[in-house]
Amino acid sequence: MEKNRTLRQDAETILREAVRAVLPEAAVRRALAGQRFPGKIYLVAAGKAAYRMAKAAVEVTPGIADGVVITKYGHLGEPVGKLRMLEAGHPEPDENSFRAAEEALRLADLAGDGDTVLFLLSGGGSALFESPLIEGEELRDVTRQLLGCGADIVEINTIRKRLSAVKGGRFALRCAPAQVFSVVLSDIIGDPLDMIASGPAAADSSTAADARRVAEKYCLRLSEKARGLLEIETPKRVENVRTVVSGSVRELVAAAGRAAEALGYRTVFLTDRMDCEAREAGRMLGAILQSHAGTGADTAFLAGGETVVRLTGGGKGGRNQELALAAAPYLAGLGNACLISAGSDGTDGPTDAAGGYADGGTVRRLAEKGLRVADILADNDAYHGLLAAGGLVVTGPTGTNVNDLTVGLIRSG
Amino acid sequence: MEKNRTLRQDAETILREAVRAVLPEAAVRRALAGQRFPGKIYLVAAGKAAYRMAKAAVEVTPGIADGVVITKYGHLGEPVGKLRMLEAGHPEPDENSFRAAEEALRLADLAGDGDTVLFLLSGGGSALFESPLIEGEELRDVTRQLLGCGADIVEINTIRKRLSAVKGGRFALRCAPAQVFSVVLSDIIGDPLDMIASGPAAADSSTAADARRVAEKYCLRLSEKARGLLEIETPKRVENVRTVVSGSVRELVAAAGRAAEALGYRTVFLTDRMDCEAREAGRMLGAILQSHAGTGADTAFLAGGETVVRLTGGGKGGRNQELALAAAPYLAGLGNACLISAGSDGTDGPTDAAGGYADGGTVRRLAEKGLRVADILADNDAYHGLLAAGGLVVTGPTGTNVNDLTVGLIRSG
Repeated sequence: MEKNRTLRQDAETILREAVRAVLPEAAVRRALAGQRFPGKIYLVAAGKAAYRMAKAAVEVTPGIADGVVITKYGHLGEPVGKLRMLEAGHPEPDENSFRAAEEALRLADLAGDGDTVLFLLSGGGSALFESPLIEGEELRDVTRQLLGCGADIVEINTIRKRLSAVKGGRFALRCAPAQVFSVVLSDIIGDPLDMIASGPAAADSSTAADARRVAEKYCLRLSEKARGLLEIETPKRVENVRTVVSGSVRELVAAAGRAAEALGYRTVFLTDRMDCEAREAGRMLGAILQSHAGTGADTAFLAGGETVVRLTGGGKGGRNQELALAAAPYLAGLGNACLISAGSDGTDGPTDAAGGYADGGTVRRLAEKGLRVADILADNDAYHGLLAAGGLVVTGPTGTNVNDLTVGLIRSG
Repeated sequence: MEKNRTLRQDAETILREAVRAVLPEAAVRRALAGQRFPGKIYLVAAGKAAYRMAKAAVEVTPGIADGVVITKYGHLGEPVGKLRMLEAGHPEPDENSFRAAEEALRLADLAGDGDTVLFLLSGGGSALFESPLIEGEELRDVTRQLLGCGADIVEINTIRKRLSAVKGGRFALRCAPAQVFSVVLSDIIGDPLDMIASGPAAADSSTAADARRVAEKYCLRLSEKARGLLEIETPKRVENVRTVVSGSVRELVAAAGRAAEALGYRTVFLTDRMDCEAREAGRMLGAILQSHAGTGADTAFLAGGETVVRLTGGGKGGRNQELALAAAPYLAGLGNACLISAGSDGTDGPTDAAGGYADGGTVRRLAEKGLRVADILADNDAYHGLLAAGGLVVTGPTGTNVNDLTVGLIRSG
């Protein structure tokens, strides 16, 4: 191993290469490589990465008849072919979300037997791509109730699917008899197709009984009409859809592994489903690195997922920054170990950093400024802690979002 | 791999074999293999495993001149040679602890130049082996204050060492000019020799300044004499001691790895320093197992250490039971994955179980009884949860104590 590269350089190289592999363009090109579609091709792209996914799809797919791109305000670029470009509200749907979905449904109706709807889906689609079966005002109210009451994402989607003409597989049904080829950039661990953007082209696993339970659990205020809609089942099979999950935390971690190998590390893949508390994940990974620091092999430990922050203070930070900082005491004094953790979208909590970096000197650098990891974590102030220790990782927005990557490196000698 | 063995049988076999390798007898035999001691040999064994360590040492070491065994009430067996057998108080030292240490100090004084003190140390030695420099009543009071105020074990020992004639390397000094051969069964992660039983034969890394800070931090009530003792430095070098840590969580995990390999598993050693929160460790390890469940290789993931329970309810359980239960949702429905976690001493929290076991059926078995993992963990009631799911691991007391073992197994097909 070339010793003129620092541990930090290696860590940042691996992060950069991993994110590059899950950029919307790369994901779409992988998914469409070698695909040929019969009949007319209609393109519908929805989500935060819709513009970049659509642009890449147009480049590799000749003869798209018509199309619509639906994304967040400020996420559009130059015009692409004859695609209509629409911006809409996120995280709460607005009137533009509804108009955008109407456009998509118009294309779904145009597509006939033997035609293909190329459906490019990314995170945020749930709000951006919406055609409510109730008044927009009530839908916004229900969404606000769900976000405010502590309902989890499964519960939120279970309700929203039933109040929508496009979610829970209903968009795919509307496309029939045309075939749907769905390319998915997944922002949910484990890639549950019926959850990503509320699954417009996926069979729905939630039931009307589930929806009723959620409504009762959180005492949702619902109109008579909405109550009635909760009782209508969503499609349990969608037979006109082929789906490729082409960008997800799985690819993110796999690409990190390839990048680490290219740098000479042996890789240990741990998980792409890490979702425990951020600081405890950091302690666990720190303990793993500490136990291997003397073993003499250049090793990269790889984990992906999305941890959660337990709020115990009022400081500033994000889950990746907490994770990295919590690992620091385990690395203290080691000259050959480091850990980097960052969001693939380039953001981590309400900060301008993508994540954090810790190595054998982090605790010492903090101590020199009178700071202790335990106190910083108790105040959820990892941002300022890592700022003081030179451990912030800043990438800027990357244009993709497939959860987070954590890499621990050990170098021999 | 033989498929007529169940996953659970494999998990319990690995646990049993691992514990067997760190029994006091095995640890002492490993440490003394091939050792020959010049001069007279005096044996001093202190700690919860003192009797079993001493018995094994006598079997393999001819010509022990004199000796004393100091252990917890009820932990003695048949007489061994001419060793004096003493029982004393734990976790708080009592008058018998003081008398026992006096016996040991008498042997230390008898041992002369060219002689050897064979010093066998195990967990609990800090209370069992004590010769206070203050009145016993005050020592007990200080110990109670430290245990009650939330001081960690490092802080507790920093104080106790300075109030003692045997801790913090002082016993070894008292043995000089004789040589001390120290065999240690470690119950502290990372085997910090000056912490195990407060390090009677180890150079002390804590300073008088540290002691002063601890006393101030917890507003300890101390006599003038005790305050004066805190200012006296402990030995920073002990040159007449050789130490072998022969049983520790490192050996526990290594032995588990050998047992898993013997059963046909490829092994992935994760850490022997796991000390994060029990339930989060379970979630992390569960995510690791879930990510590997489909990979087709028979794999054993190995971790050791001692996690901590975060109290959020009033139920019954232990750290290993919480860890196993928290992993269960990640394994739900998998036919080929399991996790076992247990204390090497055969106890886990205030229960009659050594730990817990979870596999693909645990969540379903709980659901059949109307129980959910999240609710059980919120109530810290893993004991009753695992009881309901058939997941308690009961071994009975093992006679050793080298922290905890966690093993996750994946089988192909």
